[in-house]
Amino acid sequence: MLNRVRIVLVDTSHPGNIGAAARAMKNMCLSRLYLVQPRQFPHAEATARASGADDLLAAAVVCDSLPEALAGCGLVIGASARLRHLKIPQLDPRQCAGRVIDEAQRMDVAIIFGREHSGLTNEELALCHYLMHIPSNPDYGSLNIAAAVQVMTYELQMASRAPGAAASGGDEEPPVAAEEMERFYSHLRETLVDIGFLNPDNPRVMMRRLRRLFNRARPNQVEMNILRGILTAAQKPRPRK
Amino acid sequence: MLNRVRIVLVDTSHPGNIGAAARAMKNMCLSRLYLVQPRQFPHAEATARASGADDLLAAAVVCDSLPEALAGCGLVIGASARLRHLKIPQLDPRQCAGRVIDEAQRMDVAIIFGREHSGLTNEELALCHYLMHIPSNPDYGSLNIAAAVQVMTYELQMASRAPGAAASGGDEEPPVAAEEMERFYSHLRETLVDIGFLNPDNPRVMMRRLRRLFNRARPNQVEMNILRGILTAAQKPRPRK
Repeated sequence: MLNRVRIVLVDTSHPGNIGAAARAMKNMCLSRLYLVQPRQFPHAEATARASGADDLLAAAVVCDSLPEALAGCGLVIGASARLRHLKIPQLDPRQCAGRVIDEAQRMDVAIIFGREHSGLTNEELALCHYLMHIPSNPDYGSLNIAAAVQVMTYELQMASRAPGAAASGGDEEPPVAAEEMERFYSHLRETLVDIGFLNPDNPRVMMRRLRRLFNRARPNQVEMNILRGILTAAQKPRPRK
Repeated sequence: MLNRVRIVLVDTSHPGNIGAAARAMKNMCLSRLYLVQPRQFPHAEATARASGADDLLAAAVVCDSLPEALAGCGLVIGASARLRHLKIPQLDPRQCAGRVIDEAQRMDVAIIFGREHSGLTNEELALCHYLMHIPSNPDYGSLNIAAAVQVMTYELQMASRAPGAAASGGDEEPPVAAEEMERFYSHLRETLVDIGFLNPDNPRVMMRRLRRLFNRARPNQVEMNILRGILTAAQKPRPRK
């Protein structure tokens, strides 16, 4: 799906921003960069900021006009830093990503980013089906253009991943079973009495607190072996120095 | 809530990245920037890339060491571009933001970003309760550091706007701060050597495993007092029966 999504940069002043946008795209598995009348391109600073994404710069499509860059696209979305009077429906990046991923199964999609200081003109926005607005500080709302591309492409990447394919550590070692924890707590209680920390007549409250702590940690087998080893060492007579 | 979130940049090489990170933060209503041994700071390029966010640069806290930057923080999260062998629990930016917004109601929180080329060391990651990993292109996964800050702070902004963001997080006692954990780990290492469990010439791997375990548990002050009491008791000569 992400192959059908174009990132279109209009009239960009700073070549460094073009490079940084290319890097952001490649980080997020997008590859189709369109440049409408870039001020300076190609440029060493674009290449430098692209880091390893100079293949995207080399493949970038440079256009004379915005409509040329949008040819073939069935869905067009314009990034906007301001809340507009225009009555174009507005999406945040997450809503936008959901819609793009949905529609990119059937058609090419373009997301347009405007000039560094003035964004997109009303004429350009009139070509858009939706506006995309990144929620931000009301007193300092305008993101750097490459940063805005990074946020948008990050959301596309998140949306393109299968639901439920979470990032969490799948191969993590499982915690030990309940009976193993019970053996540990017996050993712990015994050791705490041995070293004179725990009053054997009234161990309840203290042990309950320690249970809460170690139950939160949920030790795996390797960690459990270490803990048991420490307890055994603490029970032995102290080695002479 | 966002006032209690620190962005910590470790050993940053390029001052431009510091400026761009400050801009990203201010765009997303964060203000607390910490710099651990920045190579060049202050610097004209940082100011230029910060655009209107030079107030954040002026207020940035420059530290000699990472623990200094983490003082007072009850939750510490390290950004990682790689999937690590370390079994520290891993979150994507959205999961991370949910947790941060939840916990920042009760305590200061730090999110750490490492060096441009090599990220954070294993010793630095051992100070973290969670890793934050931005899902990205498996063949080109490493985001520019300011872009990573932008994605993370964007998610924090989104999470802070979510209805019910302020709701949960009841009366549970907060975990102790980072420096208290460090004192505990020193005491633990000392004790394990005293009782003959730990080889003082090679404590590294074992201590890293124990850090992982106790960082998961995140002891509160009462629990910490108990743990320290146990260590002190284990260090004393064994009472006669």
